[in-house]
Amino acid sequence: MTTNLGWLGTGRMGAALAGRLIDAGEDVSVWNRTTAKTGPLVARGARATGQIADLGGCDIVFITVSGPRDLEEVVYGEHGLLSGKSKPALVVDCSTVSASASARVRAAAEAAGVDFLAAPVSGNPHMVAAGGACIVASGPAESFRRAKPYLDVMAKVAVHAGEAEQSRLVKLCHNLYLGIMVQALVEVTTLAEKGGTDRAAFLEFLGGTVLASEWVRRRSVDLVERDWTPTFTTELLRKDFDLGLEAARSLEVPMPVGATVYQLIQSAVGIGLRDADFLSLYDQQARGAGLAVEPEE
Amino acid sequence: MTTNLGWLGTGRMGAALAGRLIDAGEDVSVWNRTTAKTGPLVARGARATGQIADLGGCDIVFITVSGPRDLEEVVYGEHGLLSGKSKPALVVDCSTVSASASARVRAAAEAAGVDFLAAPVSGNPHMVAAGGACIVASGPAESFRRAKPYLDVMAKVAVHAGEAEQSRLVKLCHNLYLGIMVQALVEVTTLAEKGGTDRAAFLEFLGGTVLASEWVRRRSVDLVERDWTPTFTTELLRKDFDLGLEAARSLEVPMPVGATVYQLIQSAVGIGLRDADFLSLYDQQARGAGLAVEPEE
Amino acid sequence: MTTNLGWLGTGRMGAALAGRLIDAGEDVSVWNRTTAKTGPLVARGARATGQIADLGGCDIVFITVSGPRDLEEVVYGEHGLLSGKSKPALVVDCSTVSASASARVRAAAEAAGVDFLAAPVSGNPHMVAAGGACIVASGPAESFRRAKPYLDVMAKVAVHAGEAEQSRLVKLCHNLYLGIMVQALVEVTTLAEKGGTDRAAFLEFLGGTVLASEWVRRRSVDLVERDWTPTFTTELLRKDFDLGLEAARSLEVPMPVGATVYQLIQSAVGIGLRDADFLSLYDQQARGAGLAVEPEE
Amino acid sequence: MTTNLGWLGTGRMGAALAGRLIDAGEDVSVWNRTTAKTGPLVARGARATGQIADLGGCDIVFITVSGPRDLEEVVYGEHGLLSGKSKPALVVDCSTVSASASARVRAAAEAAGVDFLAAPVSGNPHMVAAGGACIVASGPAESFRRAKPYLDVMAKVAVHAGEAEQSRLVKLCHNLYLGIMVQALVEVTTLAEKGGTDRAAFLEFLGGTVLASEWVRRRSVDLVERDWTPTFTTELLRKDFDLGLEAARSLEVPMPVGATVYQLIQSAVGIGLRDADFLSLYDQQARGAGLAVEPEE
Repeated sequence: MTTNLGWLGTGRMGAALAGRLIDAGEDVSVWNRTTAKTGPLVARGARATGQIADLGGCDIVFITVSGPRDLEEVVYGEHGLLSGKSKPALVVDCSTVSASASARVRAAAEAAGVDFLAAPVSGNPHMVAAGGACIVASGPAESFRRAKPYLDVMAKVAVHAGEAEQSRLVKLCHNLYLGIMVQALVEVTTLAEKGGTDRAAFLEFLGGTVLASEWVRRRSVDLVERDWTPTFTTELLRKDFDLGLEAARSLEVPMPVGATVYQLIQSAVGIGLRDADFLSLYDQQARGAGLAVEPEE
Repeated sequence: MTTNLGWLGTGRMGAALAGRLIDAGEDVSVWNRTTAKTGPLVARGARATGQIADLGGCDIVFITVSGPRDLEEVVYGEHGLLSGKSKPALVVDCSTVSASASARVRAAAEAAGVDFLAAPVSGNPHMVAAGGACIVASGPAESFRRAKPYLDVMAKVAVHAGEAEQSRLVKLCHNLYLGIMVQALVEVTTLAEKGGTDRAAFLEFLGGTVLASEWVRRRSVDLVERDWTPTFTTELLRKDFDLGLEAARSLEVPMPVGATVYQLIQSAVGIGLRDADFLSLYDQQARGAGLAVEPEE
Repeated sequence: MTTNLGWLGTGRMGAALAGRLIDAGEDVSVWNRTTAKTGPLVARGARATGQIADLGGCDIVFITVSGPRDLEEVVYGEHGLLSGKSKPALVVDCSTVSASASARVRAAAEAAGVDFLAAPVSGNPHMVAAGGACIVASGPAESFRRAKPYLDVMAKVAVHAGEAEQSRLVKLCHNLYLGIMVQALVEVTTLAEKGGTDRAAFLEFLGGTVLASEWVRRRSVDLVERDWTPTFTTELLRKDFDLGLEAARSLEVPMPVGATVYQLIQSAVGIGLRDADFLSLYDQQARGAGLAVEPEE
Repeated sequence: MTTNLGWLGTGRMGAALAGRLIDAGEDVSVWNRTTAKTGPLVARGARATGQIADLGGCDIVFITVSGPRDLEEVVYGEHGLLSGKSKPALVVDCSTVSASASARVRAAAEAAGVDFLAAPVSGNPHMVAAGGACIVASGPAESFRRAKPYLDVMAKVAVHAGEAEQSRLVKLCHNLYLGIMVQALVEVTTLAEKGGTDRAAFLEFLGGTVLASEWVRRRSVDLVERDWTPTFTTELLRKDFDLGLEAARSLEVPMPVGATVYQLIQSAVGIGLRDADFLSLYDQQARGAGLAVEPEE
């Protein structure tokens, strides 16, 4: 028996994920606020629907919207997914929202007899389209088993992190790890640099070793050129650390290095790097090392 | 005109590097204290030599020995490379030694009219044999240019870090980065774990993302199983931090996160993890998080 | 013209502060939930009152209650100070409450035409009775000027910290400073100790120098004897750091050492020191230093 | 039977300490490189001597010289204390020197049959003259017992820290504690300040509480006025931390807060505060907090 899939929200990320299901021959109904955006997916074989509630007839509905308010509206708002006569058996939310918003939506879904998986994604739309996404999901184990075949089409890794909102916490862990990595990188880069090695040579070497992540390799050129055009600002990184360290406090987990980086981020905001890319932590570090940092052009 | 190459010290790392030159058709003379170890290389096409000084007839001599004393002995000891009538134009040391030992050997070589490249390697012998080595070299730019074609056969990345002992510092930076990333890893892992996600699931997810290095992926299984069989002990990591932070102090580079990790390593030694693999920083972190850590079997 | 003073809440701290005013010949009306507690003050010359609202006839009413709920109730509760026909011109709250509770009470007072000073006290009742209190007050400058002569009778130091809730923040700063001092103390104590100096000798020396605060001198005996009978638990110190670092985050002030201590407190909670006196940070430090710490009896 | 005392080196600190012995009626022979400096002490009752070796006839000789080289010279140099026919039974060095220099001098003294106490002093000459010195001594317990009556005349506190060079380590602990407390002070001061409390009010309050040391009270005016006229530079504080953290490393004692402060000192050097008073850590902290710090005049 065929499983009917629905996809709610076909922005860049949604289109990349849904596109993989469609290309794999799945039966996917799609909805988007701006209907035109569903066009390319329909051309690849998806069915267009006019109302969110129309997706109620699907067995599993995936969601990618831009934040907690949109999520709450499309799920339990007046014209949301739970407002129709038919309801899906399972909703899988691939958006990035807080654990508390996630818990509210889960409660609403469960009250309506609908299972809920919180399934945030790591990867940008380009990587995702190429099959490089990583998905961490939490919710009932049975729901995860049901969704797994589709998650495996959408992503190269799909893991089950727990029965409740653990996947949201895992995403925060991912972000904390990134922030620490950046500070680690700028510390050793300035050390090599002050010793007389230019940044490009150092980063080429480090980038070749098994210690370097793909993220480090990609961003090395920006670090070499001190190009702080924001991909993600220092202030946004601070927001991730706010949430991550709040979770750590709540769970009573000490984060000695995480907390040290948090204060360095705070200080970077104070010295004027708030709206620059968070790689600009380099500038703060370089000043402390007495390296002349030319003002950005 | 052919360049004659020499290889002094054919232990596991030397054999892996020299083997790549031999397989590429280079003319390589080899010497090892235990002559039998050169057998496999000779079988692949290398020439055996009886005395270190016999390598003096080569244009470039590469060295891989196990530490600073051996290096000093094989270069300027009584029967060392500089003791013969003929001397090579260039010596390339691929061993891991301190900047000060490196500087002494360089001075001795230069006094004898021989150029010197300090060229430590990142990678284990298995990776190196497969072409995955990364080499960071320092010494005269002209020497680097001369050695570059051979370094490119030996390694996938070979960079020039400066005219003096910078390559030794870069290697220390590499090790500091590793230590910081281990602590980062155990902090976020315990956070996810205390939130209810098992280590294996968390590490599978993180390992799939662009934030994970190959090193993290490889060691995840040990972290999942709390297998602290030493690959590199906590005490040895402390030694690397001793050297790295001493260099940072000397160059007046602040290392806020590096120093925090150094103290955590010190504390891990204090609570009994001295001789365990340095991944056992997990145990210290887990105790601070109030997670029950079963004693190792 | 005489100023009539009122004192609302005559527990240990209130009695110590009010007692100083009474002994100085001021006209003080007192109220306490448990009327009997006002007896000793009445014996010294205070007037007893039956209802909180009776204090409305005073020019200035001081308050010392045990927390934000009590404060809100005695000020703007049904039978509170603002419920009577007469209202004081100025209320001076000497309790320890959060900035947000303080702001609510201030707003209620001002809405009723009553000025409000937030004036928390540093010092224990014994010290306070002997004139050793320190008071930090915030609210309108004019109100501070009006209260100053009485604050000077009550305390050896009384400063004006600002026009709003600054005094609450200053109290948090005081607590953060204390927590850092304790960790600093246990670090250097274990260092001296591992070098072969016994704790008592070290602390006697340090206690004699200009670096030691009276607090350090007083608590040295507990540190020598590892007497962790709680005067203030590790968990309560964490609560102070929660509030202090939350304020720092909100004001965008980096706290590199404060945050490091916060994580050490968190870790101490994790290893089982939650309910011990916060001087037990010593035990965590001693373990990290590999010193044998005998279990407490 | 009278004990004859000698005092070698009567600079400001030596004169303050020796003066107390003389005023107490002790029989004190004095020597100083610049003989004129002994004049005031002779006027108070000391005996002048022409040669260092003349002090060999004393029972106990105290030393206050300006560093390790002077100490070594006056003790075991060609014309030093050990060069004469008579030798004292006990030498008590009140200078500030490293543990290693102290150990060398001790060894030389003991080889000559002379006991040695390492007895550094905390306090400036003004305080010392008024009886406010604190002395920490190490060496044989019997030597300490012998010197104790005189140390008690010289200082308000005199403790025995161990049988070897522990007193030198205790002095380093004292300096580490000072550095940490300065950073603690500037963190909480900027927090209060950014919240709207002026520095003078905050420091007046804190200075009144039991948390404040005499040192904090004294230096508050400099902090209020941002007067960084050096009493002790940032670079000198770094030197103390170099030694203190080196000792901690050697003894395997983690110093999480000490190490954090060390890096902040390093960073302060990097941003230009090297030669300013170490209270200028305030400026670094204020910048990180986004407070406008007016350039010093």
